Amino acid sequence: MSDGSVANPVVISPEALLAHWQGHRRLTRRVIQAFPEDRLFTYSIGGMRSFGELAMEMISMALPFLRGAVTGEWESSMSREPRGRDEVLRLWDESTEQIDALWEKLPIERFQKTITAFGQFEGTTYDLLLYIIDNEIHHRGQGYVYLRSLGIEPPPFYERH
Amino acid sequence: MSDGSVANPVVISPEALLAHWQGHRRLTRRVIQAFPEDRLFTYSIGGMRSFGELAMEMISMALPFLRGAVTGEWESSMSREPRGRDEVLRLWDESTEQIDALWEKLPIERFQKTITAFGQFEGTTYDLLLYIIDNEIHHRGQGYVYLRSLGIEPPPFYERH
Repeated sequence: MSDGSVANPVVISPEALLAHWQGHRRLTRRVIQAFPEDRLFTYSIGGMRSFGELAMEMISMALPFLRGAVTGEWESSMSREPRGRDEVLRLWDESTEQIDALWEKLPIERFQKTITAFGQFEGTTYDLLLYIIDNEIHHRGQGYVYLRSLGIEPPPFYERH
Repeated sequence: MSDGSVANPVVISPEALLAHWQGHRRLTRRVIQAFPEDRLFTYSIGGMRSFGELAMEMISMALPFLRGAVTGEWESSMSREPRGRDEVLRLWDESTEQIDALWEKLPIERFQKTITAFGQFEGTTYDLLLYIIDNEIHHRGQGYVYLRSLGIEPPPFYERH
């Protein structure tokens, strides 16, 4: 790690932001796995969406956002319909790999650039990306409550490896 | 906003990170406010902590972390005992003001520096700070479920002003 002696100190590097994001994604994957197959798309509290629906929302946002930020092409037609847990995990892992591969194609200059994500959300790239990460953390927190209320212990919040 | 033509492009500036954090803090404040006074420290699901306890944890982490990162002095003795909602909000607002004031005393070089927060959590400053923000988002998501299950509509996730 660099320290105070570097010439151009930064809050966070692109590589570190990717590592941070993928760490969260590993944790969310564990939460998907922790749901019993028959509860993933059926269980909810207070009229909220099931964790399966939330996971499909995350999948429909993460890679499509990064792809759009890199290429300028926005794809939001992905189906969010219920499916088996293994299929959700397969889509998740596919996204994870593609995010890793695409990340290096996002030049650092892009982070401060204003874009219109999915043709409707205008903001700076870094801010929109943080929104997507935060949205995942937010809904995953919701998933923790679902799991606890099902009597299932969720994975530790601090474990990201 | 800067664009691709700047000499030293960054993912996020210190000022933008503070704005991001305080935006989340404004939303969390609204969630505290949304709880009925008599439910804040008594209501929970699945054996989890009440939202009041979670809010006190957030208060005990946010400003004390920043103060420690700036001064090297770590204070973690703050009481997390139940108290009135107005008192929680007062502590919240006090922290908000002090975070704003202290932020400019955190030199950008510090973000990449490895520190030991509260005498026990070793990590780079940026990573520990992101952990604190993420922990707030995580537990606030939990608060959203509590509110929904109480029949109360939580504030919109995207409103940070």
